[in-house]
Amino acid sequence: MAAAEGVSLPTPTEEMNGAGTLMDFLDEPFPDVGTYEDFHTIDWLREKSRDTDRHRKITSKSKESIWELIKSLLDAWSGWVVMLLIGLLSGTLAGVIDLAVDWMTDLKEGVCLSAFWYSHEQCCWTSNQTTFADRDKCPQWQKWAELMTGHAEGAGAYLLNYFLYILWALLFSFLAVSLVRVFAPYACGSGIPEIKTILSGFIIRGYLGKWTLLIKTVTLVLAVSSGLSLGKEGPLVHVACCCGNLFCSLFSKYSKNEGKRREVLSAAAAAGVSVAFGAPIGGVLFSLEEVSYYFPLKTLWRSFFAALVAAFTLRSINPFGNSRLVLFYVEYHTPWYMAELVPFILLGVFGGLWGTLFIRANIAWCRRRKTTQLGKYPVLEVIIVTGITALLAYPNPYTRRSTSELISELFNDCGALESSQLCDYYNNPNMSRPVDDIPDRPAGPGVYNAMWQLTLALIFKIVITIFTFGMKIPSGLFIPSMAVGAIAGRIVGIAVEQMAYHHHDWIIFKNWCRPGADCVTPGLYAMVGAAACLGGVTRMTVSLVVIMFELTGGLEYIVPLMAAAVTSKWVADAFGKEGIYESHIQLNGYPYLDIRDEFTHRTLATDVMRPRRNDPPLAVLTQDSTTVEDVETLIKDTDYNGFPVVVSRESERLIGFVQRRDLTLAIKNARQKQDGVVSSSVVYFTEDAPQLPASNPQPLKLRRILNLSPFTVTDHTPMETVVDIFRKLGLRQCLVTRSGRLLGIITKKDVLRHMAQMMNQDPESIMFN
Amino acid sequence: MAAAEGVSLPTPTEEMNGAGTLMDFLDEPFPDVGTYEDFHTIDWLREKSRDTDRHRKITSKSKESIWELIKSLLDAWSGWVVMLLIGLLSGTLAGVIDLAVDWMTDLKEGVCLSAFWYSHEQCCWTSNQTTFADRDKCPQWQKWAELMTGHAEGAGAYLLNYFLYILWALLFSFLAVSLVRVFAPYACGSGIPEIKTILSGFIIRGYLGKWTLLIKTVTLVLAVSSGLSLGKEGPLVHVACCCGNLFCSLFSKYSKNEGKRREVLSAAAAAGVSVAFGAPIGGVLFSLEEVSYYFPLKTLWRSFFAALVAAFTLRSINPFGNSRLVLFYVEYHTPWYMAELVPFILLGVFGGLWGTLFIRANIAWCRRRKTTQLGKYPVLEVIIVTGITALLAYPNPYTRRSTSELISELFNDCGALESSQLCDYYNNPNMSRPVDDIPDRPAGPGVYNAMWQLTLALIFKIVITIFTFGMKIPSGLFIPSMAVGAIAGRIVGIAVEQMAYHHHDWIIFKNWCRPGADCVTPGLYAMVGAAACLGGVTRMTVSLVVIMFELTGGLEYIVPLMAAAVTSKWVADAFGKEGIYESHIQLNGYPYLDIRDEFTHRTLATDVMRPRRNDPPLAVLTQDSTTVEDVETLIKDTDYNGFPVVVSRESERLIGFVQRRDLTLAIKNARQKQDGVVSSSVVYFTEDAPQLPASNPQPLKLRRILNLSPFTVTDHTPMETVVDIFRKLGLRQCLVTRSGRLLGIITKKDVLRHMAQMMNQDPESIMFN
Repeated sequence: MAAAEGVSLPTPTEEMNGAGTLMDFLDEPFPDVGTYEDFHTIDWLREKSRDTDRHRKITSKSKESIWELIKSLLDAWSGWVVMLLIGLLSGTLAGVIDLAVDWMTDLKEGVCLSAFWYSHEQCCWTSNQTTFADRDKCPQWQKWAELMTGHAEGAGAYLLNYFLYILWALLFSFLAVSLVRVFAPYACGSGIPEIKTILSGFIIRGYLGKWTLLIKTVTLVLAVSSGLSLGKEGPLVHVACCCGNLFCSLFSKYSKNEGKRREVLSAAAAAGVSVAFGAPIGGVLFSLEEVSYYFPLKTLWRSFFAALVAAFTLRSINPFGNSRLVLFYVEYHTPWYMAELVPFILLGVFGGLWGTLFIRANIAWCRRRKTTQLGKYPVLEVIIVTGITALLAYPNPYTRRSTSELISELFNDCGALESSQLCDYYNNPNMSRPVDDIPDRPAGPGVYNAMWQLTLALIFKIVITIFTFGMKIPSGLFIPSMAVGAIAGRIVGIAVEQMAYHHHDWIIFKNWCRPGADCVTPGLYAMVGAAACLGGVTRMTVSLVVIMFELTGGLEYIVPLMAAAVTSKWVADAFGKEGIYESHIQLNGYPYLDIRDEFTHRTLATDVMRPRRNDPPLAVLTQDSTTVEDVETLIKDTDYNGFPVVVSRESERLIGFVQRRDLTLAIKNARQKQDGVVSSSVVYFTEDAPQLPASNPQPLKLRRILNLSPFTVTDHTPMETVVDIFRKLGLRQCLVTRSGRLLGIITKKDVLRHMAQMMNQDPESIMFN
Repeated sequence: MAAAEGVSLPTPTEEMNGAGTLMDFLDEPFPDVGTYEDFHTIDWLREKSRDTDRHRKITSKSKESIWELIKSLLDAWSGWVVMLLIGLLSGTLAGVIDLAVDWMTDLKEGVCLSAFWYSHEQCCWTSNQTTFADRDKCPQWQKWAELMTGHAEGAGAYLLNYFLYILWALLFSFLAVSLVRVFAPYACGSGIPEIKTILSGFIIRGYLGKWTLLIKTVTLVLAVSSGLSLGKEGPLVHVACCCGNLFCSLFSKYSKNEGKRREVLSAAAAAGVSVAFGAPIGGVLFSLEEVSYYFPLKTLWRSFFAALVAAFTLRSINPFGNSRLVLFYVEYHTPWYMAELVPFILLGVFGGLWGTLFIRANIAWCRRRKTTQLGKYPVLEVIIVTGITALLAYPNPYTRRSTSELISELFNDCGALESSQLCDYYNNPNMSRPVDDIPDRPAGPGVYNAMWQLTLALIFKIVITIFTFGMKIPSGLFIPSMAVGAIAGRIVGIAVEQMAYHHHDWIIFKNWCRPGADCVTPGLYAMVGAAACLGGVTRMTVSLVVIMFELTGGLEYIVPLMAAAVTSKWVADAFGKEGIYESHIQLNGYPYLDIRDEFTHRTLATDVMRPRRNDPPLAVLTQDSTTVEDVETLIKDTDYNGFPVVVSRESERLIGFVQRRDLTLAIKNARQKQDGVVSSSVVYFTEDAPQLPASNPQPLKLRRILNLSPFTVTDHTPMETVVDIFRKLGLRQCLVTRSGRLLGIITKKDVLRHMAQMMNQDPESIMFN
């Protein structure tokens, strides 16, 4: 037991300073000690400890003077201030984006002569030559053909408008992809997979930077306006997170602590969804359910605050011009009946199948893009897809307009004053108009026409969205998915409505649908379909239902929505557990340890730890017999992120763990500043210097960078427990021991690789720790 | 290093069976191995492992035959079935309770002659002699005095009614307290502190049993009907959790696993709040924020389902007779103005102060009850408090009626048809009635009268609630707290309204309140006040706002509610971080490790672990040199819940951990069934039997009950990390090592005691284990 005696017994003072390894970091003996490199994983426990230390320092100082007390109060309030700022900025940006998109979408078709910065609606709204029936026609608004040739009608004008529509679309998308390419490559995509990864503790520098914020905001407007099949909701979450990151830098509490920073980002994500849909509660639940990793209750409350501030800021800007907070405000006048659950559940099945199809096809296409020549021409790809989209979209009135307008129309119930093609029913001449409770009526030619156009639009949207999502422009998935579901739902809804009208006597309708009653609301079917498709793609559950519920504002329709959401999730889960975001995370190989994956295999820590059976032995440092040169060689020869420190190679008793980065910085620093430290100097991690012959060079004490409380498990620990520990404590690595001897190490990367192996996936695709 | 050689190196087969310590439990070699005793803490990690094993077994079996496949599918669906059943039963019970309370509350005043089981409202509703103006007067409904003496009016009738009111109240409360005393002592109180403790992993047998369910349901009706200042919301959560526990016993997946059972209970708590307020989303958030400890996302979704089913079951029963889901349905017609935030924030301050006062006074009184003679006469206490309550409540119309009716009236806006005293305003004769948008009017004598009565009611409610909460009857706190806030809010609201009416020209009113406009809605003030007071007492945040928002159904009023809730929480937190539930948990000394408490002290594991400096050494077992007699002596002499097993006393290298209960059972079992096991038999935990002289009796192998992966930390680990680990992983105990040597042990109790010490609280009040 000679080796064991080498363990230095700490004195009482030392014991009190034990947590002091962390205090030392704060004193920053060498710059950058305790920070992380790009594309590395943070250690949640360490971040938390550092924050507690900081807090402790401030609290103890606050008793010293009034100034320190004020500083400590400011520090305590800084969280709320950050939330307020995030809410204000993201609400404002969302409002500006909405206004700009409105204007630029209309710009593809024409221009307002009285003020070119007016959108079509604003233009005719301010005009006094507008009647209610023809509310989207006014002399101030001119289509391009009319303006250029003077003819508003005719084949020539149509073709010219068609041509200019495509041209504008190409221009917008070219600008968008070029800006992304040149200024901020991270601004592409929806951003949610990356934000999930960042929130789980990964570092991607610049992903939430100022440039990304600026470029993503601008290119989002361009991308949406270009008429591509994409939405602004995912990117708005990214934009809000960039705002969050921006305001973090104002307070050292958040900027210097990666753990605390992530609390702010979780709240920012909630604010992002809140402004995307005008649904603050749904936003908070989305952040909790879908995006966040570590979500303490304090964050729940703050997220809610940020989401509310953002929603109210957006409402003050009032981009939709109707004082409504929500994106698709609807009001239905009829309840739903139990028998309708059958079509609702069928829509759920459709949503689940669409989700599966979309994820598989999109991932296959994105993999192709990554691995073949295709990926080398992102600008060309965007141009081609935009060209095809514009070419096919223009002839169909349901795809020509913006997708959110389309969804809005599909959700709407046909009131008596509705003039759209979808509401072209034969009216009962005896009916007194206008009333809200219009009985079911036979469909007119306009409805049948619309059905055809909607079917074509459905096929078009399904195909084009698969190719659009993942291109090098900002692209959200919520709106296209909802559009697919809304179209399918409306078609089913009209079909059920007409069946109920023409076959009152069928058993299924007999009990609830008297002739002359308003039984079926096709708009509700559209909404249910939208929820089902969105659920199939993202696998959201509670947040989905709450967002949809906030859109309608009535508890009445929760059951249909829930039935569809549950069915869609079950159907989609039967084909594969992962939603689109998890699939993209996997495709990109981010080290993301999903909280929801259940690890059920019977492996043990010993099966996963390194070194494996035929590997060289574990790279360790000894507490008092390694020289500076040995350490430098070790650092050069290996690329491990840290090294365990043991009493001696023979006893293998674990003392602590030292980070590679800290070790490198410490030695570099010592070589520069500390006299007498040479290559043959002994590095020691004990409290007292080892007894060395006088001829030896001065030893180097590195105890301050040693983590004296590394996390250990025994080799018999089941992997499910290890996975649980990694998830819940947010570890970076964990040491494996058996009866006190160090056997090996398990890193997050090892865990992920093992999980992938057990699921027969490609283990090599996981990015470096 | 002789001792180290004693470590038996496991063979590869053994390695694969390593997790098998758990498999062995499932095979149940001795009955009850792996279960817990009453008033003990569960080990979450172990429960989770056991469930994974069970799941693995079922999955692998399911490939064998169709029958096994069906069984595995049933197992997978059992969670949803349990949720459905919980929703149905708790919704039904809530409906029955509502109906019974309605009837019995009215029974105190009179009886319906046409059908004695009708409540006052139902009685006059079915009568055709009722006019709208006098809708609560009809000949079928007779007060007791009228029925007995024939005189409806006069001092004699009043006194007789008064007397009978008190008599009924005393009867109801006497019945309630007797039933609780005799049949189910656990049925008293709100139940939420205990449910929080149970959900955090404590075992209280019978707390959620069938008897408790039955008696709590019956006595809740009696207690609420007796007119005491208590509500049914907290107890409904308890009732729903009892339902959850009941249905758990149908499925071995839940009944045999304490961890899985708690997932069901979390969802049941959500269903409870859902039916209490008709707020399903609020219920889920309440369970998440306030009650639950371990709340995985799967539970979120299931809770939501259970909460919805419960809400819809309740709505089908329709106890309020208005097809509304919510308890207090209100509709306001005017927006709020920024200047009104000042009174809203003042109401928040009031709520925070009330919360602090209530918690301090109630805890002091409950402590007195626990420690003095007072606690020995619970029946007498209830009788006296009921007597005083009834005596003081009858003369004041606002306290005579049930508290929920009072709140309902206070929340309501004064419509044109409102006939209550609170709406006695002077009307403008030019006003065309009925309109919804009634301008502010001068208050009439009824309003001034009401203000006095409300002030008296406020003082009465504040005082009596302090003495009521904690008595030996079911008693919820939500309704009395909300009543206090609603009264205060309505008073402030009327004051502001009259100020605004009489002083249009004051600067504060000038900008938003034109003469003749409807600026101030006193009902909204009542609602904000109720939120503030409820928040001050319970410290709920998001769930509070969401519940209140679901009550009104409008996003409009979230900002006032939130301003009041935030202020109230801040004010109350300034006087003490704990809400009423945490305070009662502490008062009762339950071992509850609050997720929200931040541990910020700089202590280390070594400061907390046992043995302390002057204690006898840690009680350990050695892997192959302890005899059965030694073990039995150790079990007799100590009361530890488990013992670490080391290689040898000299080397102190840790091998594993064995639970006291398992050890006792194993030895008892071996003594009975295994030949040759005597007191001097050696107990061994290694894979192979130790080499003993042939004369020795047969050794006893106990490896199967040894946990080979005990949780360890080093002595240098900061306590904040240890607390975090205990919280997040739900540990029961944790071993402390230094460089591979076992130093000591930290149990949950040690952690709680240390935390209490650091906060200068009474550490002795923590219940065992």
